[in-house]
Amino acid sequence: MMPTLTEFDTIAAISTPIGEGGISIVRLSGEDAVKIANKLFKGKNLSKVASHTINYGHIVDPETSEVVDEVMVSVLLAPKTFTKEDMVEINCHGGIVVTNKILQLLLKHGARMAEAGEFTKRAFVNGRIDLTQAESVMDIVRAKTDKARQVAMNQLEGGLLVKIRTMRQEILDTLANIEVNIDYPEYDADQVTAKQMQETSKSVIEKINRLLKTASEGKIMRSGLATAIVGRPNVGKSSLLNYLTQDDKAIVTDVAGTTRDTLEEYVSIKGVPLKLVDTAGIHHTEDKVEKIGVERSKKAIEQADLVLLLLNASEDLTPEDEKLIDYTKDKKRIVVLNKSDLGMKLNKEDLAKKTNAEIVVTSILKEENLDDLEEAISKLFFSGIHNSNNDVLVTNQRQAGLLEKAKTQLTDVIDAVDNDVPVDIAQIDFTGAWDTLGEITGDSAPDELITQLFSQFCLGK
Amino acid sequence: MMPTLTEFDTIAAISTPIGEGGISIVRLSGEDAVKIANKLFKGKNLSKVASHTINYGHIVDPETSEVVDEVMVSVLLAPKTFTKEDMVEINCHGGIVVTNKILQLLLKHGARMAEAGEFTKRAFVNGRIDLTQAESVMDIVRAKTDKARQVAMNQLEGGLLVKIRTMRQEILDTLANIEVNIDYPEYDADQVTAKQMQETSKSVIEKINRLLKTASEGKIMRSGLATAIVGRPNVGKSSLLNYLTQDDKAIVTDVAGTTRDTLEEYVSIKGVPLKLVDTAGIHHTEDKVEKIGVERSKKAIEQADLVLLLLNASEDLTPEDEKLIDYTKDKKRIVVLNKSDLGMKLNKEDLAKKTNAEIVVTSILKEENLDDLEEAISKLFFSGIHNSNNDVLVTNQRQAGLLEKAKTQLTDVIDAVDNDVPVDIAQIDFTGAWDTLGEITGDSAPDELITQLFSQFCLGK
Repeated sequence: MMPTLTEFDTIAAISTPIGEGGISIVRLSGEDAVKIANKLFKGKNLSKVASHTINYGHIVDPETSEVVDEVMVSVLLAPKTFTKEDMVEINCHGGIVVTNKILQLLLKHGARMAEAGEFTKRAFVNGRIDLTQAESVMDIVRAKTDKARQVAMNQLEGGLLVKIRTMRQEILDTLANIEVNIDYPEYDADQVTAKQMQETSKSVIEKINRLLKTASEGKIMRSGLATAIVGRPNVGKSSLLNYLTQDDKAIVTDVAGTTRDTLEEYVSIKGVPLKLVDTAGIHHTEDKVEKIGVERSKKAIEQADLVLLLLNASEDLTPEDEKLIDYTKDKKRIVVLNKSDLGMKLNKEDLAKKTNAEIVVTSILKEENLDDLEEAISKLFFSGIHNSNNDVLVTNQRQAGLLEKAKTQLTDVIDAVDNDVPVDIAQIDFTGAWDTLGEITGDSAPDELITQLFSQFCLGK
Repeated sequence: MMPTLTEFDTIAAISTPIGEGGISIVRLSGEDAVKIANKLFKGKNLSKVASHTINYGHIVDPETSEVVDEVMVSVLLAPKTFTKEDMVEINCHGGIVVTNKILQLLLKHGARMAEAGEFTKRAFVNGRIDLTQAESVMDIVRAKTDKARQVAMNQLEGGLLVKIRTMRQEILDTLANIEVNIDYPEYDADQVTAKQMQETSKSVIEKINRLLKTASEGKIMRSGLATAIVGRPNVGKSSLLNYLTQDDKAIVTDVAGTTRDTLEEYVSIKGVPLKLVDTAGIHHTEDKVEKIGVERSKKAIEQADLVLLLLNASEDLTPEDEKLIDYTKDKKRIVVLNKSDLGMKLNKEDLAKKTNAEIVVTSILKEENLDDLEEAISKLFFSGIHNSNNDVLVTNQRQAGLLEKAKTQLTDVIDAVDNDVPVDIAQIDFTGAWDTLGEITGDSAPDELITQLFSQFCLGK
């Protein structure tokens, strides 16, 4: 069922990031949007201007007649708006005080403070977008790499929605046929029906599997591949980090807070977004007395999807090296034999056998063979991804979980038919799968789920 | 002279604060703004839409045909725009990657990256605003309190501009009269002329003085009154800080980074914006073993315009107290006799005599007489300010410095006339004052000054 929300009052929020900038936007949505904005606006009468126009004027506090700011006000009338409701966007001078003041005035004159994600929620409730598209809106905002943006944009354009709706339609067609079969009992209805359900289940499972295969790629695209650089002191961790974070690889380095001291740095290696784990640890400990050593590494390893394990190629393995090899044995890892320019004490083949991992021989200091390392990273995770730009990816756990659930339900249908379970019993799971797939798009999602989902959005979206 | 800039190419920048938010704006200004945006925009033909309209569509990379984002594009044609040039504003999904990507595409297809403040600079160069209004734009963005915003808004509306131009006109009228007098040498031209110059100089100096009186208020409104809370351990600094920063007084507490650990907190005390100095020091040292003590206070005192010196009313003065009284003797200060609920060992009158400061007796813990403290702060700095909401304030050092210079030049004119210096010599300073006042508004400002001034702006403004 579609959720039936009744609160369609007029909401307001600051929709630009908070901070000092050229322009901020305070946004209104709801049937009184124009009326409320008009109370504060000195300029044209906003209720008389055409939709999708921008109007110059001032925000004036109606009680004190004080001029609050010089603004440009956009009037966007339903239904061709983000929420499908009447909307007003007040573009004011960026700046925290002035933006807050305008918001406060709107709240004082009839608007309600929007909850996190409430604008997007209205777009969903009013039927402009489905849940996967709503999720992609936040994915676009939070995208750390261009690939992540690409995947989210594809989803916003309905990529995943179309695939899910196609599967649901397939199930629905079969369900309709079942009704027909029941109406004509002269045929051997049950057998035909059971056969149809089983075939459709197999066909849909195949499609689900194809989507589920994209889930790990989707997760990495969305969040970056958590990567830990480990190794004993002075093996070259800091040099590797410097190489990886040099300008042409670093992502969003110009964002406030994304400094060398924070725990997350993002780099793009041949299109693969790596989220480097505990880089502060590397910076703080390498090249000085390294006090924390392998125990700190252990924590970084736990958080990582990929471990880059550095060994000193010119020296024998130490007990510390052995420990790190042991700690990382259950992880996807690449072993980097560094300092090859100082001679090769370690044997590549031996280590390949010992670790069952890709071995790369480098001299990070001399920037030798670093391309091999990048190639190894790319190969390990993204053999297919360079060609999948336009593919639909499952990008979050909610979607993947529901796909798994539908798959289980359809598998149960197949088993039931194999075991001659009566059609109307098997049909319960078959209909269940249809519902489950509907939860992904929100065609059949309970209100609580929707509330919970949108609460993870940011304010003003 | 008006600066003559010739580079009117099309510029682009991100105009919203950088970060994750609902909406970001990428802005273009210049004669190719529409043409460049059109190359990337899939939707209506932007060169055919009416000015001041908002147009739904997509940004598409023309080389790869890849959809970058779903956007709303505002077309604003000259001259009714911020810069008086053609402008395009692309409202895209907030988010760092997508916003940067759109900017990069614009740069690739003919736009130049805007310098800091370049949009506002064009508004100035194209004659829409003067320099004081340009400065007020940044003051609005950076305003830490509502009063600061108010003062800046007043300046943006031309408050200061009108006053300066009136003074310049007064000087110009006199100069014109001098020319007339020279043309009619039969009169005792020189004497009449000298007299006129002297009178005008006196009149303008009076107006300048009135403006200069507002400069310290203006500075405080703009930047907040730097306030240090000092006193020996456990005298109640932390309690006072907590009282001052409680919710209804704290300013912009919801801004990222404005946490208790940063060095700047802003509070509004009866409309007076206080910038609390070294609050981290208070939090870190008070209520624990206070290691750093008076030496740290010394540094805070140096940075402060106002010192709140806390003494323990229930104990005799200690050598530490005496030191702090000494350190603060050249500062505006308020002495707070705290812990009055534990008895009064200190004498209010004695201390008033000793410190020559306002004395307030409080119990911060029991929240007694805190209003007296607020009143004292307000009285000390802002006796007149509550009635000066609509007054014009001089808000920065540049303006104040030029006013001082003009005042000196006019004083020299008065002296010259008194000393029977020939009119054409005295006239040099008189004309100089006219030029100096013109520098404030930018009517006669050298190019370098203008370049330097706008470089302090933020990007995208």
